[in-house]
Amino acid sequence: MLKEGDLILLYKDDRRNFLTHLTRERFHTDKGFIEMEPLIGKEYGLTVTTNLGHDFYVLKPTLYQLMMKVKRLTQIVYPKDAALIINKSTISPGSRIIESGIGSGALTTAFAHAIGPQGKIYAYERNEMFLQNAKKNLEKNGMADRVEFKLREITPDNRFDERDVDFIMIDVGSPWELLDAAYEALKPGCRMATICPNFEQVTETVFTMEDKGFIDIETFEVLTRRILVRRGKTRPEQRIPSHTGFLILGTKITKP
Amino acid sequence: MLKEGDLILLYKDDRRNFLTHLTRERFHTDKGFIEMEPLIGKEYGLTVTTNLGHDFYVLKPTLYQLMMKVKRLTQIVYPKDAALIINKSTISPGSRIIESGIGSGALTTAFAHAIGPQGKIYAYERNEMFLQNAKKNLEKNGMADRVEFKLREITPDNRFDERDVDFIMIDVGSPWELLDAAYEALKPGCRMATICPNFEQVTETVFTMEDKGFIDIETFEVLTRRILVRRGKTRPEQRIPSHTGFLILGTKITKP
Amino acid sequence: MLKEGDLILLYKDDRRNFLTHLTRERFHTDKGFIEMEPLIGKEYGLTVTTNLGHDFYVLKPTLYQLMMKVKRLTQIVYPKDAALIINKSTISPGSRIIESGIGSGALTTAFAHAIGPQGKIYAYERNEMFLQNAKKNLEKNGMADRVEFKLREITPDNRFDERDVDFIMIDVGSPWELLDAAYEALKPGCRMATICPNFEQVTETVFTMEDKGFIDIETFEVLTRRILVRRGKTRPEQRIPSHTGFLILGTKITKP
Amino acid sequence: MLKEGDLILLYKDDRRNFLTHLTRERFHTDKGFIEMEPLIGKEYGLTVTTNLGHDFYVLKPTLYQLMMKVKRLTQIVYPKDAALIINKSTISPGSRIIESGIGSGALTTAFAHAIGPQGKIYAYERNEMFLQNAKKNLEKNGMADRVEFKLREITPDNRFDERDVDFIMIDVGSPWELLDAAYEALKPGCRMATICPNFEQVTETVFTMEDKGFIDIETFEVLTRRILVRRGKTRPEQRIPSHTGFLILGTKITKP
Repeated sequence: MLKEGDLILLYKDDRRNFLTHLTRERFHTDKGFIEMEPLIGKEYGLTVTTNLGHDFYVLKPTLYQLMMKVKRLTQIVYPKDAALIINKSTISPGSRIIESGIGSGALTTAFAHAIGPQGKIYAYERNEMFLQNAKKNLEKNGMADRVEFKLREITPDNRFDERDVDFIMIDVGSPWELLDAAYEALKPGCRMATICPNFEQVTETVFTMEDKGFIDIETFEVLTRRILVRRGKTRPEQRIPSHTGFLILGTKITKP
Repeated sequence: MLKEGDLILLYKDDRRNFLTHLTRERFHTDKGFIEMEPLIGKEYGLTVTTNLGHDFYVLKPTLYQLMMKVKRLTQIVYPKDAALIINKSTISPGSRIIESGIGSGALTTAFAHAIGPQGKIYAYERNEMFLQNAKKNLEKNGMADRVEFKLREITPDNRFDERDVDFIMIDVGSPWELLDAAYEALKPGCRMATICPNFEQVTETVFTMEDKGFIDIETFEVLTRRILVRRGKTRPEQRIPSHTGFLILGTKITKP
Repeated sequence: MLKEGDLILLYKDDRRNFLTHLTRERFHTDKGFIEMEPLIGKEYGLTVTTNLGHDFYVLKPTLYQLMMKVKRLTQIVYPKDAALIINKSTISPGSRIIESGIGSGALTTAFAHAIGPQGKIYAYERNEMFLQNAKKNLEKNGMADRVEFKLREITPDNRFDERDVDFIMIDVGSPWELLDAAYEALKPGCRMATICPNFEQVTETVFTMEDKGFIDIETFEVLTRRILVRRGKTRPEQRIPSHTGFLILGTKITKP
Repeated sequence: MLKEGDLILLYKDDRRNFLTHLTRERFHTDKGFIEMEPLIGKEYGLTVTTNLGHDFYVLKPTLYQLMMKVKRLTQIVYPKDAALIINKSTISPGSRIIESGIGSGALTTAFAHAIGPQGKIYAYERNEMFLQNAKKNLEKNGMADRVEFKLREITPDNRFDERDVDFIMIDVGSPWELLDAAYEALKPGCRMATICPNFEQVTETVFTMEDKGFIDIETFEVLTRRILVRRGKTRPEQRIPSHTGFLILGTKITKP
């Protein structure tokens, strides 16, 4: 049953859909406004009509939609990449993890979703504007209480506060500089990840990881392509993002 | 601290690694055996040496590794596809979901991981041998208690027992035949998914979903490619799976 | 040695480059004009400077550039696809071939290039405006004399004039309707090709080809991705065309 | 009309097909032998039956088939890559070109096909066994007279004999070492190409090309995927080569 404050997706089509909290107010779209109050006490899945006669569906947002709807002050880590990082990591409901360089919080959203209400993210960001924006995005998505936001730049000399976390994500321009800090904070046998747009970053990061006590190091790229299914006219979509970043993952072992 | 019964990955390299429970016995590999008892009370991340002098690392398995290590009696849904399904679904820790056609339980493993200990999977399978094998796989992965296994074939006339589940996965040869059953069992505003190897299945499924009250229907394919990072010889891997299946997702709306 | 009338590419960078014939006149660009007369008697490879001080290189155009610079009244067949069609066909210098549905003449340009001055293309097009435009494109590219342009719609009842051609390209919306005509005009043991954007066209075309006496039928898609090589910032391009069309090729056998 | 010595493809299916010259002898296959003499004076496209009752078709080989059937002593450049190189080069019927490092002659076959009987390839190879094998491959393909084979290693101090060629292909492990030699031999305004498996080779080659007077430098990768069209079971092929090499092309400009 929908309650005031619930997150809903008002969905008309793939291009026109809005993420919002359910309130007693009107929600304005370019196709007219929707009276939200009558939705309270109803269920997801309903059709509502704007004052101009356009139908919208009231849907439960997916993680994909939460990620893509964050307000962006930075490039985001895309859902396709976030999904593979989680799959190849040691994150699960209840995990304690570190994310360093949270940008707009899209990946933070994915992690917060995966760790659930029992988990905790220690989220480091040196740019205050980004941090505040990411925090607002997580608040909107209803998961800010799973995140401890820390306005700080991690450097080789100024490291993480936590120890024995289950996973560490490093998303900064020179990830190789933070590998000692990551190694120190990570639980042995667990995974860290980073994402790099450029090959030179990839090689420097991987070679440094090899030196620093990480094994099972893997580098990936992920491509997704939509198939547009239409009667007699089914075909793949015509343009796709062909590069977002290379994902690098590795596992900490205890040094002898 | 490692306890008896914990799941560990004994990892030598990308090709030689073993998933097992920690016991007081010897673990035999083609590189000699490992005495496991001394590991009890230690931590993940250790290096152990076989009686023949080969080093293995004691790692915490990732979801990817759990999925790829299931004993297979059927084709499995690959991690890359499972990861995107979860990302684009309404699954989260605590969800109650249905999976129909569980095969070897690789995808079940991914779902069980995502829903956490508070969630529940109603797992339908008509083939008893597959069901028993999948159950063993989930037991090995330590998540069988999140799954209710049901030896039954779902048909248009013999439908799911549950109602208002948060997500439904249909993985059978003719998914369009089970759409009424899926619609009936799914909570409005929530997602269902299926995976089809062939285009003819894709079009028939999507067009039937459109007729049956699903919207925001999307069809995807996912490709991943490894980059092999080696000094002076960094290159993409030379062969990849170029097709596993097309993922189809859609959202149930309430019919007027 | 450059002569009046030679085709040159005035190249500043990847985005700003112009295909033109060498004349005694000025060539105007948004970066100023170039006096072309002094180039007569010189060689390709020179640098020329506009009156506003911008350098352009005088290059010999590649086939790729000729194709991409045709004036477009229609979608064109892309170089990546044209290149694979030629590779998998029975076209070589001196071939006599048919192309039905020439659109803007980009693919005609590729074929004319491959067959050389001794070859001949019988180029059918039902739309007079497209035909005239394609003819102008081929004239500009200096290969119109290799093409016999025919303003005609090929139908099951109104077939090709030629027999025993070395290759036939069918580029129309319903290629399966022209397979009898193609079979009739093609030399036995030789190849035909078509390109279809949609799966439904692909299956109907392939199944009809199987019925009509074609073998070794293959369907392909081709993707190309640029790597942007820049010091410390080498990465793949970020968006690519992910679908242009499916290429179908088959070989005519003599019916018993 | 088929003559003695003509190249024919005896084709049963995608996996079982043989490239041979037409003789008056028997051609032996694992499905029995074919009497070839009766084919003389007939046409391509015929069906012939082995003494064991299996049908084969007599086809005109495509360039793709000629390339894939070369006897291999080395890795070959794949047709998909050869096709794009030619498309983006300044090769056409009648061109004079250099290829350095010819390996097994698959790419040489593609070039010889593109330049036609009026063209000429200066084909350098330092390994005599490779050279002899490539020569035999070209002889079999009927194009050896378009190629001048030169048993020589090109080095910075031991350069090409030719000048003003229309295109140069460098296919060696350290292409950057041969760029001065390539620059010297190439006609200004024309293209050179190389293919590298590794990123480190790509960056070193491209940066050196920039220094040596090449412009319009492009780096590509090409992927092709087959669609298997079968009634009710149409799907993409399940494994593809995901990396063969990166193609690099550039244009020589005259230095001021």
